[in-house]
Amino acid sequence: MKVCVLFSGGKDSSLSAIILKNLGYNVELVTVNFGVVNSYKYAKETSNILNMPHKVLCLKDTIILQKCKDIILKDGFPSNGIQYLHREVLNIVSKEYDIIADGIRRDDRVPKLTHGEIQSFEMKNNVEYISPLMGFGHKTIRKLINQHFIISEKESEDLLKSDYETEIRELIRLDRKNPLDYFPTHIQSRVIGLK
Amino acid sequence: MKVCVLFSGGKDSSLSAIILKNLGYNVELVTVNFGVVNSYKYAKETSNILNMPHKVLCLKDTIILQKCKDIILKDGFPSNGIQYLHREVLNIVSKEYDIIADGIRRDDRVPKLTHGEIQSFEMKNNVEYISPLMGFGHKTIRKLINQHFIISEKESEDLLKSDYETEIRELIRLDRKNPLDYFPTHIQSRVIGLK
Repeated sequence: MKVCVLFSGGKDSSLSAIILKNLGYNVELVTVNFGVVNSYKYAKETSNILNMPHKVLCLKDTIILQKCKDIILKDGFPSNGIQYLHREVLNIVSKEYDIIADGIRRDDRVPKLTHGEIQSFEMKNNVEYISPLMGFGHKTIRKLINQHFIISEKESEDLLKSDYETEIRELIRLDRKNPLDYFPTHIQSRVIGLK
Repeated sequence: MKVCVLFSGGKDSSLSAIILKNLGYNVELVTVNFGVVNSYKYAKETSNILNMPHKVLCLKDTIILQKCKDIILKDGFPSNGIQYLHREVLNIVSKEYDIIADGIRRDDRVPKLTHGEIQSFEMKNNVEYISPLMGFGHKTIRKLINQHFIISEKESEDLLKSDYETEIRELIRLDRKNPLDYFPTHIQSRVIGLK
């Protein structure tokens, strides 16, 4: 059974991929890129560490990252924009894969789909959607991460990652605005080795 | 890391246990028994198949099964009673284990804790609570079950299992009432082998 794991190279999507691989899935790590920054290369490095195949899904020709950025600039905070973007990405990926997974955790606020949205997404697109970390709390995940991975932690401005945020920040900069006015400073992490 | 997996011998708690074992946990399968029917023996058989240690937690001296049965008789349906019972069991188990897991799935209605209840439960008792199947839908789980287990499926009146329902049904019978008036007929399953 092939599963597309939406993959940022971060610890959560890496842990999700490991859970699914252990269950017997044929995992394909997929990093979405919007053509703004070639940040997918960091995820590719992590995919090599995990020893799992990696693909870049180029969504350069869509307007969804622009729309996401506009929502964030209008709101003054990123949650609704990120939520919008993740939903759109899921819809696009569902055209190519029958089983789609992500690294969303129980205690995440966004992106997160409601139970109703998940059921509707699965039925409309005839796909299975899996969030392997949905039943795991942040303390549990922190311990699992420490057990499985060597990670690099830095503030989000400094860490080069392959998540949505990297390209959104760049789009905001191109608008001559400061990403720090919209994104709270937080510690980001990248998997740089296995234990 | 030792984890107590609340274990009925059914496919869901078996799959949960496998996910946790694959993540490196030291899994202890724990079957709660209220001294009404010695139904725990079916879970013990399954634990042998899974090759994981099994313990019976005897709660004979508590009144929670009686209270659960009373709620069900008053309501005329089982959901609130089962919900009450699972919460009480989690509280009791949290006195003995630091990490507690169950087989609750994304699409289950009961027993299920809200996000707020989970966080409160973890903080009050200083435990971690894991529901490894919370991010998996019923279709996905059905496929995983078929891939991993040989199962026996029967209607709930006929299948000898170690879940809460078996003992609740017996208590209702002892009250000279018919469990079929309270529990909908549904197909139950037991793991009888590995693939």
